[in-house]
Amino acid sequence: MTAKLAGKARSQALATIKGWKKVRGRDAIQKSFRFADFNEAWGFMTRVAMAAEKADHHPEWSNVYNKVEIVLSTHDAGGVSLKDVALARVIDAVA
Amino acid sequence: MTAKLAGKARSQALATIKGWKKVRGRDAIQKSFRFADFNEAWGFMTRVAMAAEKADHHPEWSNVYNKVEIVLSTHDAGGVSLKDVALARVIDAVA
Repeated sequence: MTAKLAGKARSQALATIKGWKKVRGRDAIQKSFRFADFNEAWGFMTRVAMAAEKADHHPEWSNVYNKVEIVLSTHDAGGVSLKDVALARVIDAVA
Repeated sequence: MTAKLAGKARSQALATIKGWKKVRGRDAIQKSFRFADFNEAWGFMTRVAMAAEKADHHPEWSNVYNKVEIVLSTHDAGGVSLKDVALARVIDAVA
């Protein structure tokens, strides 16, 4: 599951998630989220943090008040793996 | 309290906190923190989030696994204010 996605498997896996863009200069995907305020943004991040810890696969993310930027990539795989696609799906479900 | 710090008041206020560096190209201060793992980093961030929400003054921050980067600046003041110094003190106490 930690193998870097490539070719048809990659495009098929990425087709199952929406709004995630390729990060420039590295094999990673990213998405931005905007909430009503910090309280809501933090609530979202907390739910994602729980899921990430459970899956032992963590996002690279930043937060400024009501905005959250998330980058997903699998360090061990050196790029986007099915773990990232799975986490992206959880994130989208939480958001 | 939201006035941008300048001159002697600024240097005196910044002298009360340790390890916070000036951010290049903008009036802000930043510090990096490193923990044992994501669990610890998230625990730290959660305590800071509570304090920030209570003070209604929020950090700009990013997290990658066990690392947390924090930037403090007061949007309304257009730079570093006593609110940032107060939040920096809370952050250092939590860390």
